[in-house]
Amino acid sequence: MQIAFFIFPELTALDAIGPYEVLQRLPGAEVVFVGAKRGEVRTDNGKLGLTVDATLDEVTAPEVLVVPGGYGTRPLVHDQPTLDWIRQVHETTRFTTSVCTGSLLLAAAGLLNGIDATTHWGAKGQLEELGARYTEQRVVQNGKTITAAGVSSGIDMALMLAAQLCDPVTAQVMQLFIEYDPQPPFDTGAASKATDEVWARLAKLRVTR
Amino acid sequence: MQIAFFIFPELTALDAIGPYEVLQRLPGAEVVFVGAKRGEVRTDNGKLGLTVDATLDEVTAPEVLVVPGGYGTRPLVHDQPTLDWIRQVHETTRFTTSVCTGSLLLAAAGLLNGIDATTHWGAKGQLEELGARYTEQRVVQNGKTITAAGVSSGIDMALMLAAQLCDPVTAQVMQLFIEYDPQPPFDTGAASKATDEVWARLAKLRVTR
Repeated sequence: MQIAFFIFPELTALDAIGPYEVLQRLPGAEVVFVGAKRGEVRTDNGKLGLTVDATLDEVTAPEVLVVPGGYGTRPLVHDQPTLDWIRQVHETTRFTTSVCTGSLLLAAAGLLNGIDATTHWGAKGQLEELGARYTEQRVVQNGKTITAAGVSSGIDMALMLAAQLCDPVTAQVMQLFIEYDPQPPFDTGAASKATDEVWARLAKLRVTR
Repeated sequence: MQIAFFIFPELTALDAIGPYEVLQRLPGAEVVFVGAKRGEVRTDNGKLGLTVDATLDEVTAPEVLVVPGGYGTRPLVHDQPTLDWIRQVHETTRFTTSVCTGSLLLAAAGLLNGIDATTHWGAKGQLEELGARYTEQRVVQNGKTITAAGVSSGIDMALMLAAQLCDPVTAQVMQLFIEYDPQPPFDTGAASKATDEVWARLAKLRVTR
């Protein structure tokens, strides 16, 4: 069961690594980090390097595709080789998934036309411009296409996916292994839960990536 | 504010990347991935490469140290250069932290003698052998030393840390940015919550890393 993580310069690392850590121990899983060219890609802030181990032409029929997001999705929304590859791979996946603004790439490839999907709360307008119906839900599934909200949402998405790739008990084993028993110290993890004070501070800190 | 992530071969990626994604946008944060030598380290299953950008001798006084875990901690528990560096750095950190079995390294360096600490649920015996008092809690803080439970616990730990490095509103901004509004599909993320069926499946799948 090949699980392909498409990575690219200026990606947001946790978008990919959250699902990776849930899925990598599934029985039969063969994880591969694929990109335009082999070698290092740097994350959105340039402070972390991840390795692309295989090129697009070397990964043609994964069972699962995971597309993370990040600032680096924006140039790729117009990159024909990327969109062609996503479309081609989607034909034979069991599941095509995205985290955060990775859904902008699925949308640009035409996979989300007229269907419910989600993305990072800051990119809902862009997602709709690309043809999807933004849904304020942490994970949205339409048949074999699954989109997740921002960044950390990929972990929840991957657990739901693991239950379908294998079975719910296996997914529960993965949840136990990564000790995913969340106890956040605050409750401002969604746009609907952020206070005026938090929005004001977000603007002041100019957090855009 | 230098935030150093100590990484090494056979680490568990999410241990480091969860906290990294929470902390990297803090005002003034300068993130660095440090290790024994520059270049690529591969994760526990060998399927992902991360880049070490700086060596131990190049990072001598970070404000924050984050030590992830993984199978690769076991050989390092006896590695004097690693332990010496942790001890030296700990003298001047504002906070010394670990995720998962990263606490075994803090313990081996003598930082957890006789104090409450935590680790991955599967390593509690090893932590106690190294002198700490295992505490079944997701995040355990003793003054400037903070240990977190397994893998995904690093995200919760990092939010608590962000509130202390900056202030609670800033931490809430980071929680919003990574959309950390967890909604796991199951509730088996802690040893105390796993059912007999899950334990039996864990053993059958031989999930050890």
